[in-house]
Amino acid sequence: MRKEKGLLLVLSGPAGVGKGTVCSALREQETDIQYSVSATTRAPRDGEVNGINYFFKSREEFKEMIAQDRLLEWAEYVGNFYGTPIDYVQETLNNGKDIILEIEVQGALKVKERFPEGVFIFLMPPSLAELRNRIVGRGTETVDVINERMNVAKEEIDMMKNYDYVVENDQVELAVERIKSIVIAEHCKRERLIEKYKELVEVN
Amino acid sequence: MRKEKGLLLVLSGPAGVGKGTVCSALREQETDIQYSVSATTRAPRDGEVNGINYFFKSREEFKEMIAQDRLLEWAEYVGNFYGTPIDYVQETLNNGKDIILEIEVQGALKVKERFPEGVFIFLMPPSLAELRNRIVGRGTETVDVINERMNVAKEEIDMMKNYDYVVENDQVELAVERIKSIVIAEHCKRERLIEKYKELVEVN
Repeated sequence: MRKEKGLLLVLSGPAGVGKGTVCSALREQETDIQYSVSATTRAPRDGEVNGINYFFKSREEFKEMIAQDRLLEWAEYVGNFYGTPIDYVQETLNNGKDIILEIEVQGALKVKERFPEGVFIFLMPPSLAELRNRIVGRGTETVDVINERMNVAKEEIDMMKNYDYVVENDQVELAVERIKSIVIAEHCKRERLIEKYKELVEVN
Repeated sequence: MRKEKGLLLVLSGPAGVGKGTVCSALREQETDIQYSVSATTRAPRDGEVNGINYFFKSREEFKEMIAQDRLLEWAEYVGNFYGTPIDYVQETLNNGKDIILEIEVQGALKVKERFPEGVFIFLMPPSLAELRNRIVGRGTETVDVINERMNVAKEEIDMMKNYDYVVENDQVELAVERIKSIVIAEHCKRERLIEKYKELVEVN
């Protein structure tokens, strides 16, 4: 019988929204979710372990991974390369385990090209959540401030459109609870389960 | 600004799966979910309150509700009519509250015709969940027993296809947790949220 594949979860959102904080808080909880390990060319810091914190690579090794299409996405950041090795993600999914990638919006789009079946979660800044109150609100803001906020909000809303879920990061614990709920709900999706049972009844 | 509508949740599944037990256990927990109140022609029992346990109706009143298309679904059961008044459901949704209907599979299909946007949850019998082990298992069952179980399983799987989610009722508390997670996840669906924010940015 075919083994059920894990879920690829992608947590993304605008810069500064708190993706890292939310992901760390999720890691502290007891779940069956695995965490993607990035490859990087930057030097290990004290206590960092190869294969746990990062896969530490030379620039040559990293470039070879790019050339061999072994990275789901990659980017250069202050002189170092960072990327998501596809093998680790694929192995985890094939073992029936869910894996989460915490990633910038550009990287998330690249992951989506390769894994359209992934579960894409957009972490929404509280500023957007508060938009309603602030704009409609007490009328104490200048027109310039309101316009600027509107433009930022429009850009953020535009980014949402490629995602399956939008999670408000009003409080880290609440955002973590919502993500855990999304994972449980995704495992209850009829498409996933019905195929499993159909196969069972037909094959045997 | 348009008020966000509540979710119509429909909990259904094969007879005897434990819909009532799961729904009661859900009611005992603190959630914002409202519970649909059925109309019935049966006499109130001691302690039952009109508008809380049921809307108690005469046969004439009930038939008028049918004629006026004011029931989402209805059925006759041991000489009495039972049905779901559409007004109560509609008002709850318009007030932005989620409402759950616990209902037989035939009724669920009727509700789906009227509310295709509802969230349809199929409660799966543990027998189906255990099918894999039992069939593939230790080979101690007779062919007749296996065939019978297969036929029941096929019918149950066939019923699943109209649902969005399949929740295993292996343990009531786990089933309740899964349903609560589905509600949270549905509120995080991008389609719901992006429209809300788009409207906000465009209207103002």
